[in-house]
Amino acid sequence: MAIIFNRYGKCRIRLVKVRRAADPHDLVDLTLDVQLEGAFENVYTEGDNSSCLATDTMKNTVYAFARQDPMASPELFGLRLAKHFAATPPVARARISLAEHRWERLTADGHPHPHAFIQPGGERWTAIVEKDRDGERVTSGLENLVVLKTTDSSFSGFPRDRYTTLSETEDRIFATSVTASWKYHLGTAEFGARTLIRRRLLDTFATHDSRSVQHTLHAMARAVLDACDDVEEVTLALPNRHHLLVDLAPFGLDNPNEVFVATDQPYGLIEATVRR
Amino acid sequence: MAIIFNRYGKCRIRLVKVRRAADPHDLVDLTLDVQLEGAFENVYTEGDNSSCLATDTMKNTVYAFARQDPMASPELFGLRLAKHFAATPPVARARISLAEHRWERLTADGHPHPHAFIQPGGERWTAIVEKDRDGERVTSGLENLVVLKTTDSSFSGFPRDRYTTLSETEDRIFATSVTASWKYHLGTAEFGARTLIRRRLLDTFATHDSRSVQHTLHAMARAVLDACDDVEEVTLALPNRHHLLVDLAPFGLDNPNEVFVATDQPYGLIEATVRR
Amino acid sequence: MAIIFNRYGKCRIRLVKVRRAADPHDLVDLTLDVQLEGAFENVYTEGDNSSCLATDTMKNTVYAFARQDPMASPELFGLRLAKHFAATPPVARARISLAEHRWERLTADGHPHPHAFIQPGGERWTAIVEKDRDGERVTSGLENLVVLKTTDSSFSGFPRDRYTTLSETEDRIFATSVTASWKYHLGTAEFGARTLIRRRLLDTFATHDSRSVQHTLHAMARAVLDACDDVEEVTLALPNRHHLLVDLAPFGLDNPNEVFVATDQPYGLIEATVRR
Amino acid sequence: MAIIFNRYGKCRIRLVKVRRAADPHDLVDLTLDVQLEGAFENVYTEGDNSSCLATDTMKNTVYAFARQDPMASPELFGLRLAKHFAATPPVARARISLAEHRWERLTADGHPHPHAFIQPGGERWTAIVEKDRDGERVTSGLENLVVLKTTDSSFSGFPRDRYTTLSETEDRIFATSVTASWKYHLGTAEFGARTLIRRRLLDTFATHDSRSVQHTLHAMARAVLDACDDVEEVTLALPNRHHLLVDLAPFGLDNPNEVFVATDQPYGLIEATVRR
Repeated sequence: MAIIFNRYGKCRIRLVKVRRAADPHDLVDLTLDVQLEGAFENVYTEGDNSSCLATDTMKNTVYAFARQDPMASPELFGLRLAKHFAATPPVARARISLAEHRWERLTADGHPHPHAFIQPGGERWTAIVEKDRDGERVTSGLENLVVLKTTDSSFSGFPRDRYTTLSETEDRIFATSVTASWKYHLGTAEFGARTLIRRRLLDTFATHDSRSVQHTLHAMARAVLDACDDVEEVTLALPNRHHLLVDLAPFGLDNPNEVFVATDQPYGLIEATVRR
Repeated sequence: MAIIFNRYGKCRIRLVKVRRAADPHDLVDLTLDVQLEGAFENVYTEGDNSSCLATDTMKNTVYAFARQDPMASPELFGLRLAKHFAATPPVARARISLAEHRWERLTADGHPHPHAFIQPGGERWTAIVEKDRDGERVTSGLENLVVLKTTDSSFSGFPRDRYTTLSETEDRIFATSVTASWKYHLGTAEFGARTLIRRRLLDTFATHDSRSVQHTLHAMARAVLDACDDVEEVTLALPNRHHLLVDLAPFGLDNPNEVFVATDQPYGLIEATVRR
Repeated sequence: MAIIFNRYGKCRIRLVKVRRAADPHDLVDLTLDVQLEGAFENVYTEGDNSSCLATDTMKNTVYAFARQDPMASPELFGLRLAKHFAATPPVARARISLAEHRWERLTADGHPHPHAFIQPGGERWTAIVEKDRDGERVTSGLENLVVLKTTDSSFSGFPRDRYTTLSETEDRIFATSVTASWKYHLGTAEFGARTLIRRRLLDTFATHDSRSVQHTLHAMARAVLDACDDVEEVTLALPNRHHLLVDLAPFGLDNPNEVFVATDQPYGLIEATVRR
Repeated sequence: MAIIFNRYGKCRIRLVKVRRAADPHDLVDLTLDVQLEGAFENVYTEGDNSSCLATDTMKNTVYAFARQDPMASPELFGLRLAKHFAATPPVARARISLAEHRWERLTADGHPHPHAFIQPGGERWTAIVEKDRDGERVTSGLENLVVLKTTDSSFSGFPRDRYTTLSETEDRIFATSVTASWKYHLGTAEFGARTLIRRRLLDTFATHDSRSVQHTLHAMARAVLDACDDVEEVTLALPNRHHLLVDLAPFGLDNPNEVFVATDQPYGLIEATVRR
């Protein structure tokens, strides 16, 4: 018997840093996972902990680094942590996952407030940073960006087998929660493309004449690559949050694409990776 | 033995209505509960269903009414449903709970898009409408409005008993998820105060010099009553989402109110109702 | 303006106590809420914290009491906490909510293991204890007891209005998650009835010839009152977790009550309180 | 630009099948995902749906197959579905994920009841079945098996760097939620090992003298491979659900490993794959 894969670490480290040096205050809110791979076999087989950095130490390290770091972006903070953890044998690979919870400055009495914030929902900005002997890799992303369009979405011309009952439609609701991730060319990348990428994803979702979720996904991915030279590949996952037209005929009413049931499950899920 | 309370109905009816008459499209997204009370004892004791309106019928009714209703506000739609259900014996009270999931119009290519929307997070706008022999009652509200301030919040001067270890603090993070509800003077109310109430809650949270969660809660409630003449009472529930200062001294670092652990549990919970 | 209701406290205090005195070990796993009401107006209006026991102190108190308590039942532990917190002015009412997470002893190598446990799912055993000037009140209960029967459940004879489309059925799946609570005659009660009550709830659910959820709910409540003399009233809430028969006719197949879609929402919800 | 990965399908198909042929009734409760990969590029780039089997059709297919299948195990049902979906070009790989929600027969009035069931918690039995040109692969597993031991768990001898504050301990609580998966030698496998594997995981967790989560994970994995000849590799993921000893010294109390705070986050996470 052999251990062919092992990984361990600390998950869901919750870190909030307030930058108070200047007025107005600035706020960073992160959830981090630290995960290490390497030649830890003796920990497993012998109960020998001499190489087993405690996961509690990983947590402490995150907080100590946060104190000393400008926290300019999750990617750069993740890279510093990955370098630190990858430097100690027998670690072969350090993986830092970061999710940033967004806060926007509150406007109070008509002015931006210097130290009050509001959380604009469940959208998260993500980064996964890995360091091993082959170098560093950064994947940035966003999750839970929820959008809907009431028209310009069709689905027709699909194959019909003996189990097909779905009607063709030229006009349906298209609702989804975007999960996106993209890989930067390292070296050139400054990790500053998230706002532009988000903008291009939203613009394309809104304006695309959709013949399927796949069709719009591809247009969104292409728009990202067109707009951002230092992104080399983008992955999108779009759940199809089905909105079913309610049959009101039994009540003597028509339903000209107005009244829908929003359903949670089952749902379609469309995923693809597009590379430059 | 006697049945001293009974209530039944359909919960989590998911309704999306698109108003297509005009361009741009408009969107209403609701989750509703319909609940009835009344002299239904025979249903329970005898298995006699002759008075037991099926909960499936309640669901159908919501969708049929939605087709014919302008859906100007959750309160008005709820009142129409409540009147309908309360009109049939043996119903003594109809209760409609509505939660509106907010959507904002997407700005695409720099312009408001006519039929694309984005969901600005988990905030919900709520209404509870009741109709019985004593008349109609409407409670409006909002939930999951998440805010944080990095200063202007203290907690000191509290009593110390043998179990008290908490230090006094003159400067702490104050983070909460606001749940608010308010009762209108019926007759005069047009149910249009939510935007103003939300504005006053946020302004007061941001600018109040807080000596406790209770202290700020009271200021927020008072601001609502000051601003809205047709609101007669307001209830607030403010969880204290504790942010604990990390002790970095073991690592030779200070922590001048900069690095915090955001904790989920346990949490303080402060509730109060203020009446004009 | 006046504060007409106020309550505050600490929620979701997570407490695990191991009784190690004897072998085998014993385990109690609780989540507690402590909530106080009283004449705390000055805390709200003046920011005067001199009467405001810190919620952190409440948490400390729970752990200190747990160390010294035999933890024989959540009800008795809750009563001790309620008495402690209600004894200090200006507290007018102390309310302790407890949820016990169940653990069963693991059987290892065919024998009950002295210190290994398994969690048999999401069922929680609950208690709410209140103490105020009128005395003490205890409500015990259980939550998330999930059961299903494949037959002996019908729903017919219900009224048909213009919005009714549901077919009558003489044989359907009945699935629910039982939430039950009951009030003891204080003085006589030893709080030891939970196992018997749970047994009677399950026996009645299984064997009742159900004409509606209401019909079975009433039989279950009556069975509890019949079996437990020191229970004076019982409340049940039974969601109807609908299982919809799949229409297989388009595929040339019948479906003799065999293949179902289990749905989460919407769901029926039936609630009643039966008093001796 | 090129699409370098694409996958689509229907997720969270909820299927309940009652086997009524014999008395007592039998019950299977599954949540399934169907996912297809293949040469679907035209769907994405051209909006050409002629090869795009609707996800609604996938759902219908699952229900139609369920009607005709003995549903002897999730693995065998998954294999039949995978073969069906993989047979139609341009599908290159079909992936069926199944999670079985367990139900146990209720004992009513002291006897096993022929058609009433209780859900023993959140444990799920899982299978992932894949079919592509290289053949079929089956991975079986279980999730959310929650266990705890009150002793026979230590953690000491770990390295101490400048960020280490954790004390060594010779006696701590070890609590986890087991996620396990294993791969069968296809051909010989009958997919009947889950009960034995679950038994070996529990026995080993209970009786192992643990020097770390890793140490016990390895013993558990080895026990599975020792017991089941037709399993070729096993993967375990064990979160360390930390139970922190409460410091009661400020209250003049000792705490001889009796009173703990159960914490949700952060948590350690230990993963490994062991191959025969």
